[in-house]
Amino acid sequence: VASTTPRGTTLTLVDGAPADALPLDDRALHYGDGLFETIAVHEAEPRLLRAHLERLLHGCARLGLPPPAAAILERELRDAASRLGEGVLKLIVTRGGGERGYRPPRDPRPRRVLLGYDLPAHARAPHAEGLRVRLCATRVSRNRALAGLKHLNRLEQVLARAEWDDPAIAEGLMLDDEGNVTGGASSNLFAVLDGALVTPRVDEAGVAGVMRRTVMEIAPRAGFEVRETTLHVTQLRRATELMLSSSLIGLRRVQQMDEHVFGGEEVWHRLSAVLAGAGVVPR
Amino acid sequence: VASTTPRGTTLTLVDGAPADALPLDDRALHYGDGLFETIAVHEAEPRLLRAHLERLLHGCARLGLPPPAAAILERELRDAASRLGEGVLKLIVTRGGGERGYRPPRDPRPRRVLLGYDLPAHARAPHAEGLRVRLCATRVSRNRALAGLKHLNRLEQVLARAEWDDPAIAEGLMLDDEGNVTGGASSNLFAVLDGALVTPRVDEAGVAGVMRRTVMEIAPRAGFEVRETTLHVTQLRRATELMLSSSLIGLRRVQQMDEHVFGGEEVWHRLSAVLAGAGVVPR
Repeated sequence: VASTTPRGTTLTLVDGAPADALPLDDRALHYGDGLFETIAVHEAEPRLLRAHLERLLHGCARLGLPPPAAAILERELRDAASRLGEGVLKLIVTRGGGERGYRPPRDPRPRRVLLGYDLPAHARAPHAEGLRVRLCATRVSRNRALAGLKHLNRLEQVLARAEWDDPAIAEGLMLDDEGNVTGGASSNLFAVLDGALVTPRVDEAGVAGVMRRTVMEIAPRAGFEVRETTLHVTQLRRATELMLSSSLIGLRRVQQMDEHVFGGEEVWHRLSAVLAGAGVVPR
Repeated sequence: VASTTPRGTTLTLVDGAPADALPLDDRALHYGDGLFETIAVHEAEPRLLRAHLERLLHGCARLGLPPPAAAILERELRDAASRLGEGVLKLIVTRGGGERGYRPPRDPRPRRVLLGYDLPAHARAPHAEGLRVRLCATRVSRNRALAGLKHLNRLEQVLARAEWDDPAIAEGLMLDDEGNVTGGASSNLFAVLDGALVTPRVDEAGVAGVMRRTVMEIAPRAGFEVRETTLHVTQLRRATELMLSSSLIGLRRVQQMDEHVFGGEEVWHRLSAVLAGAGVVPR
């Protein structure tokens, strides 16, 4: 097969060395057996690096995957960020090669795949602009063994993202089989409900986002405690504000969900101010 | 990264050409965005080829993935089987390369990965020998969009298979979050319950196995209609017989599940006779 540089990428490394392909025995190809991090790069620095590394190492522990040395990861990410300047780093850690069959190798040798990309258009849009989102028909599975992890089993998100073409719609919200909102396909959700700031639990489904964690840590400075909760889809229309968070978009307010328009933006303004003050999102 | 032939493989092709690596933009690596088939090769022929191809094309349709031409797949599989003689072919069809993000490319160019392996030891074991199995703690997710498909999101099966080391245990049975049995981690399950032959439904979880389908089609010749049902774990110990099916193991009876021993084997004998008569499993 012709070796090609992935479209849109500006940097591709496997285990720290320039590479454009992954060995065919890799368990990420066969089973999605691995984890990933999507890291914003701004002014040649990987943003929220500590939180990304912590989540990755936590995920490795939960999957029983011997983690790459944090010092190596940090060095590679900082070096790549300095080459990238502005953009996105995607770090994939796989369980490495193995024989046929689900059983993990006795002595796994994880692989690191590091890819650099340009910043996507939606992450460059004016931060103050409200987003339009939709409710997806594709449901998210509930599974306590995988919940919260940013693992490589993402077919549900792929099918959800395939549901719409309209470039005006920035994100799709996903529900579990009981109709509880887990978040966006590639973002976490916050809602202001009866004056309280809440976010869906991530112990049965969803991803424990790094920006989500950052917002939860910083919210008290804006006068809010974020409560993790079960949030049914029928409660969304009662919310006075909806917001989405991710490493790439920061914290954005939702202006419209399908035909429903959200009027409020006061909580979002206060949170944005403390996030900007902490240097987490641009002013 | 050093290009290495996958351990234990004897044949590796990407899109029909010898290759040992997959481009880093492939969506199978990033999202598990693809499907696979595991095909037994006996006397230089791919077994149950028609059923494997039908399931693959059905899966492509459900994932919105333009299927490779059946004629090309059939030719490559037959050619590989004739080179392999005896063993296992694993065919992976991915959605191909793409830009960053879950959204499938507008014009996807799927890739075919074809790997040949030796027959695993458990598939060479005497067919009459009963298997020991265990109940896994790792649960299977329920999701109607993915149920039945042999897709590449297999972390649950990986975690389940990591639960035991004892080589005497051939397979782990997996339950969904309601305690219903979905099958083995890499096989389908049949049970004789109150004299009736049943198998777990695959419309909420599990894989619609090719050998499962074959057993269901052939069972009437042995005097049985297979009923698809919801099968709770508490019903398993009431079963007089349990059997597992897969392309590699054929149809095998379960002798022991954890500490519970199954005495019966009459239905298994009758099914095995018709399967052998049809040339599906060795006599």
